[in-house]
Amino acid sequence: MTTRDRSVHRSAKDNYRWEGVEELPYKEDDRALFKSVTRQVLFSDPEMHAELRYFEVAPGGFSTLERHRHMHAVLILRGRGHCLVGGEVRPIETRDLVTVPAMTWHQFRATEGEPLGFLCMVNATRDKPQLPSAEELAKLQTDAKIAAFLRNGRT
Amino acid sequence: MTTRDRSVHRSAKDNYRWEGVEELPYKEDDRALFKSVTRQVLFSDPEMHAELRYFEVAPGGFSTLERHRHMHAVLILRGRGHCLVGGEVRPIETRDLVTVPAMTWHQFRATEGEPLGFLCMVNATRDKPQLPSAEELAKLQTDAKIAAFLRNGRT
Repeated sequence: MTTRDRSVHRSAKDNYRWEGVEELPYKEDDRALFKSVTRQVLFSDPEMHAELRYFEVAPGGFSTLERHRHMHAVLILRGRGHCLVGGEVRPIETRDLVTVPAMTWHQFRATEGEPLGFLCMVNATRDKPQLPSAEELAKLQTDAKIAAFLRNGRT
Repeated sequence: MTTRDRSVHRSAKDNYRWEGVEELPYKEDDRALFKSVTRQVLFSDPEMHAELRYFEVAPGGFSTLERHRHMHAVLILRGRGHCLVGGEVRPIETRDLVTVPAMTWHQFRATEGEPLGFLCMVNATRDKPQLPSAEELAKLQTDAKIAAFLRNGRT
């Protein structure tokens, strides 16, 4: 199984792909709204208590707006964009670090010009993401900056 | 405490340093042999079961030759060099993935021309590294490729 690959050395291929690593659909939850995101599981092993995944958001794309109990530890590997974490929208660029605390609404959006690629470390055992209810979404949108962020590219 | 920084966003600074992240000595063990390595703990939190660290080996430098029960999940972030993992010496370059299994002798060496920087994910709870005994080192050196790798730059 590719996500349990124990090869000692897996070479980087062009364009942020890796030898022996499968490019996966971003989400299996059909209700989740997102645009042009791929997922690669770089490290996942029964002996490790966390996983390291690489997500790539195509230009103008965005990840799902969600929250969960588990934390995210994110390092931007390529490109730039914006992230929403809790009540704040922030510009992000290559090598920036983003911490998503427990139960905090978050979303990543790529600029138009280039893909946004990021590493995300998570605990191996973790809860499922929750999607915002209509009421929770409306509440987030009462902040003008968040509303603009969420509107951007959602066509 | 910098290694428990919970800031949502920490910007990358020039030259692979990060806002709010301290540059630390590589090792506290005085017996460990290494050359020109720095350590930055990018993510470490009581809620996360793993840590993400960034190590940088200056041109021609090398990490400690060691082994331990816990696994290493490594992504080369900048530069190139060679790694020894178990019985094999391999060339490594930017974005390659390296898995160091339990109780496997390993060492990373930078080329002369540029620094070798890598991310290393480890379990938060882990055993201390072991250094090779004179006998174990001699055994490793019976392999000509490993002997050449270990000799390189050790002045």
